[in-house]
Amino acid sequence: MTSNESSWSGSEKKVARAAYDKALQTALASILAEFKSRASAATTFSEMWDVEDYLKEQRRDLDRMFDYRYSQLTIVFATLIRRGYLDENMLSGLSEEKRQEIRRMLAWQARG
Amino acid sequence: MTSNESSWSGSEKKVARAAYDKALQTALASILAEFKSRASAATTFSEMWDVEDYLKEQRRDLDRMFDYRYSQLTIVFATLIRRGYLDENMLSGLSEEKRQEIRRMLAWQARG
Repeated sequence: MTSNESSWSGSEKKVARAAYDKALQTALASILAEFKSRASAATTFSEMWDVEDYLKEQRRDLDRMFDYRYSQLTIVFATLIRRGYLDENMLSGLSEEKRQEIRRMLAWQARG
Repeated sequence: MTSNESSWSGSEKKVARAAYDKALQTALASILAEFKSRASAATTFSEMWDVEDYLKEQRRDLDRMFDYRYSQLTIVFATLIRRGYLDENMLSGLSEEKRQEIRRMLAWQARG
């Protein structure tokens, strides 16, 4: 099992933290770009409130997606890869067991 | 007293509705302009979330300020005049009693 902090070695933790932070920056950059585009295009009051709704939804989505508990990290990484925020290569350095678990989750999510 | 719907004549209701709608458009236009300016200037994630907070606050403020119950209208108009969203001249056509009540509220708010 990979669900306890004790199952993550010191070097794995470093890899995980770097991958996580990189994915967060990527997700935020994507939201910022979309925000700038929508805000710039907005000309009506309704479109302005749509931008607020968009940001609110993205903030909630980030809160759900980015969860750095070791018990959650493999499913978090699988989700980030599927959403295009994380390159799987960033995870080389994790144990083969963890990487396989992530791939199994990806395969499982892909069915849905 | 001006607090019951029955104390508002048909022509007063028309004046009130026109003034209220005009003030709402003015307030929204002001928020839209500020939103466009802040969004356009935003370059960081933090500034992006600030725009969300700004819109959320403005939406709450509008909900509080724009209350078309006849029991609330004189205080609503006083507030809208004080905030610069309504020109007092838009209210000519209301009874002198109502206009004086609004002026008393304005004077009272101005003390604060």
